Amino acid sequence: MDKRYAIGVDYGTESGRALLVDIATGEEVATHVTPYPHGVIDERLPVSGVKLRSDWALQHPHDYLEVLRRSVPAVLQAAGVAPEQVIGVGIDFTACTMMPLDKNGTPLCLLAEWRENPHSWVKLWKHHAAQEEATRINELALERGEAFLPRYGGKLSSEWMLAKAWQILNEAPEVYESADTFMEAADWVVMQMTGEFVRNSCTAGYKANWHKQEGFPSEDFLRSLDPRLEGLAREKLRGPILPLGSKAGGLTESMARVMGLRPGTAVAVGIIDAHAMVPAVGAVTPGKLVMAMGTSTCHLLLSEREVLAEGICGVVLDGIVPGYYGYEAGQSAVGDIFAWFVEEAVPAYVKEAAANEGVSVHEWLERRAAAAKPGESGLLALDWWNGNRSVLMDADLTGVVVGMTLQTKPEEIYRALLEATAYGTRAIIEAFEQGSVAIDELYACGGLPQKNRLLMQIYADVTGREIRIADSTQTAALGAAMFGAVAAGAEAGGYGSVVEAAARMARVREETFKPIPANAAVYEQLYREYKELHDYFGRGGNEVLKRLKAMKRGRA
Amino acid sequence: MDKRYAIGVDYGTESGRALLVDIATGEEVATHVTPYPHGVIDERLPVSGVKLRSDWALQHPHDYLEVLRRSVPAVLQAAGVAPEQVIGVGIDFTACTMMPLDKNGTPLCLLAEWRENPHSWVKLWKHHAAQEEATRINELALERGEAFLPRYGGKLSSEWMLAKAWQILNEAPEVYESADTFMEAADWVVMQMTGEFVRNSCTAGYKANWHKQEGFPSEDFLRSLDPRLEGLAREKLRGPILPLGSKAGGLTESMARVMGLRPGTAVAVGIIDAHAMVPAVGAVTPGKLVMAMGTSTCHLLLSEREVLAEGICGVVLDGIVPGYYGYEAGQSAVGDIFAWFVEEAVPAYVKEAAANEGVSVHEWLERRAAAAKPGESGLLALDWWNGNRSVLMDADLTGVVVGMTLQTKPEEIYRALLEATAYGTRAIIEAFEQGSVAIDELYACGGLPQKNRLLMQIYADVTGREIRIADSTQTAALGAAMFGAVAAGAEAGGYGSVVEAAARMARVREETFKPIPANAAVYEQLYREYKELHDYFGRGGNEVLKRLKAMKRGRA
Repeated sequence: MDKRYAIGVDYGTESGRALLVDIATGEEVATHVTPYPHGVIDERLPVSGVKLRSDWALQHPHDYLEVLRRSVPAVLQAAGVAPEQVIGVGIDFTACTMMPLDKNGTPLCLLAEWRENPHSWVKLWKHHAAQEEATRINELALERGEAFLPRYGGKLSSEWMLAKAWQILNEAPEVYESADTFMEAADWVVMQMTGEFVRNSCTAGYKANWHKQEGFPSEDFLRSLDPRLEGLAREKLRGPILPLGSKAGGLTESMARVMGLRPGTAVAVGIIDAHAMVPAVGAVTPGKLVMAMGTSTCHLLLSEREVLAEGICGVVLDGIVPGYYGYEAGQSAVGDIFAWFVEEAVPAYVKEAAANEGVSVHEWLERRAAAAKPGESGLLALDWWNGNRSVLMDADLTGVVVGMTLQTKPEEIYRALLEATAYGTRAIIEAFEQGSVAIDELYACGGLPQKNRLLMQIYADVTGREIRIADSTQTAALGAAMFGAVAAGAEAGGYGSVVEAAARMARVREETFKPIPANAAVYEQLYREYKELHDYFGRGGNEVLKRLKAMKRGRA
Repeated sequence: MDKRYAIGVDYGTESGRALLVDIATGEEVATHVTPYPHGVIDERLPVSGVKLRSDWALQHPHDYLEVLRRSVPAVLQAAGVAPEQVIGVGIDFTACTMMPLDKNGTPLCLLAEWRENPHSWVKLWKHHAAQEEATRINELALERGEAFLPRYGGKLSSEWMLAKAWQILNEAPEVYESADTFMEAADWVVMQMTGEFVRNSCTAGYKANWHKQEGFPSEDFLRSLDPRLEGLAREKLRGPILPLGSKAGGLTESMARVMGLRPGTAVAVGIIDAHAMVPAVGAVTPGKLVMAMGTSTCHLLLSEREVLAEGICGVVLDGIVPGYYGYEAGQSAVGDIFAWFVEEAVPAYVKEAAANEGVSVHEWLERRAAAAKPGESGLLALDWWNGNRSVLMDADLTGVVVGMTLQTKPEEIYRALLEATAYGTRAIIEAFEQGSVAIDELYACGGLPQKNRLLMQIYADVTGREIRIADSTQTAALGAAMFGAVAAGAEAGGYGSVVEAAARMARVREETFKPIPANAAVYEQLYREYKELHDYFGRGGNEVLKRLKAMKRGRA
């Protein structure tokens, strides 16, 4: 019989990517990227030109369909694969990326009546204009001792469903009223493909505070936030919530035509992008911490137990792999810090030397930094350039560097920044362990790990754990394709579960990074120093960072 | 009658400068610089090529005479001034820059017998190889409760006479034995000009721990350090110690010929370079803090009272202006921090933008930084890139910056560094005030103040005091010339005292920097934050900086 394939579609912030994967081996056969025609809408609305406030970030729902129309046929064509060889489609998405729909499932922003109202558009994950709502949600949930709060580390984000929906109600009650439902873009795209109105347990759990047994936050809580919010969950977030790997439905005739696939091809429910990476590296059983490392890092972990640990941003049953509690934690800036350093703090002579040696500035710095021993620079940094997500959950914290002398070199500061993010990850590992959630191995994916060997060695040395590296740079799309193969099911030549799929399709490199004992010993000392400064600046020893930030806001 | 002139010769680290000054007005008529032919000798000895250890720094005594031979005639010629119009010569010098002499006053290094021994050469102020001796001196002085110790803030430097002399004894006892005397280079050059063996109260007080009433550290103390040191003060530091402004003698026939001046021309006793700046800006009465700001900052102040305040590096009666206690404090890096930043941490795009605008990187940063308001960056730094001299007296402290975000710009960090040095100066002012030594006005000189208006405005805002700026960039040489005019005396057309000389010859700009109340209010808050971090990192709250430095030493 011919080979069978699944397609994963990875919806990022600026573009979408289709990946054609061989189901038997996980081999990535072809890939194609479609930039969103409207990109991130953060200045003016399309067509009307209505101006947006500075902390807004919207998208155009048609851009998502454009990815299906262009990239899916493109990978088929590139690989010379016939439509009938593709048995399943899965998608992963940024989240919470949500939109209001009318009774027909049409985004309000596509209706002439609403398109000039910014609240009718898709609110992208990084839309940051609902902070007041988030603050009030957290205050009230704490006051009332709501059971859902500790599952999110004691703090819900302004990026999530509740805050975004409430912002719509507060600023555009007419949009709120006219919205038959609010839907994650992931679910909306699946609905476009299948005609089925279903939600997925991943975005519902991590972004809309849904719990498999307890459901959404209670009507009583919602009413106490705002009487008009009482029906939010019952009405506007209604609909079946299916575990990951579920088949949402089969491709409709019309979408099959658009995508160049066969009608009825199995489509899986959507998943958050970072979470899709977990099966893609084969981490489908407890004790394996997956670090999706890019501009920021998302840490994901499975466990058989529900534990409430400090600084864990979310714990959701069926949130990643059905049957397990999926834990999420994060560092709000990682690659972003290194990029900031290269852009804003690396002297001209380094740029010139790198150019002369024919390497990037990052590579030049990495080479020099790799030649040094841990502790040799006398530098130590706190990795809070974009606040601290886990374990402190405090967006108002800022970066710290100590130990500079007149002899300090750029490559030394660069290394101190790499180390700082490793200490941040170790603090997260320790928080899990204090919550009795064991972590035995680390898996790294997401772009940075393949580019920076020194970074990975430092993470191994600082955490004292072996690290496996994803053998794909399209890890999220690979994970999405795996869910597509599971949605197709074993009978169709796919798999009965994501665990089975991972056994065949997951991809990690043979080479791993192991702790070097001499380095680990020095990092043991340095981590203690990090932890002391972490607690001093982050737990109220001296709230100078927050006072400086408040002063900055007041003065700017 | 023709105009009368004095010549000041300023001996720096790399070169010497002669300045011809109009005695009636302080006008700087001509100047000439002679680089030292041997520069700083820190790798190999001249002639023999004997290799030096890395923390050594020596000089060649003939280089000092070369300055007199070249630069003095050059200024006379440039100005068309006749020898008989020059009534006095004064010199200022780096200190403690010391050397062993034989019975004839010849530096041992000039004798074939000794020249291959590094210890026979001039030890420059920044020779840092006597740290072990300094540590032991401080331990023992503390243990014995020696009265001199608190006059130096509780700590003598490895740069000073005692440590340097003891190092010679420890490492080259034969040189120590053969040394008839140890002499400051300042005094040796005066001796070359006049044939008179005299010392000055400034270097003796600040660098050899001499006290006008109590003399040098006691024989008992010296013996307890090392029995062989017992006679150090009595024998090897013997000789009259004259107050500043004293006439050491008249120019000898031979030196008058070398310098192109008249024999018998009055020569003042020497003075430390920074201290010479005090009269040069007219700060000859109590309450005026003079900041000699260059790579580091030296703070100088007169008072009628002897008070022992924390972190004051020295208090010496007659140490600056006869009749007053002269106080010295310091910041071990100021301009050096800004230079480090420009060299090691300013990105290529800034360098390019500055070049396009035809300004230096410093100027570009200053312009951008000046456009911001205090507190607007959210940044705060501790100015300890080269340790902290006053008030903590701790060389093992290192730099700290807090408050970075992904939006932080180089000009913001630059401004935070300028501010950090201003906070450091305010901490020194407060230490004086806590010791009941009043400070009413600030005077800035030394190179930086004329170049950076933003820096001066920040100092005014942070300290809440008006700042006057020296109207000369050769302030030390001007001060030395004033002492030359005083040595000549009123009868010869000079002055009866340095106070009288300052009334006519001192030069400050008309424009001053006054605190801007709105800025001062913000800096009041920021200074409190600085102080809290200062005490946390500097007074044992968290000794992380010292532990990191120890680790660095151990690893390197």
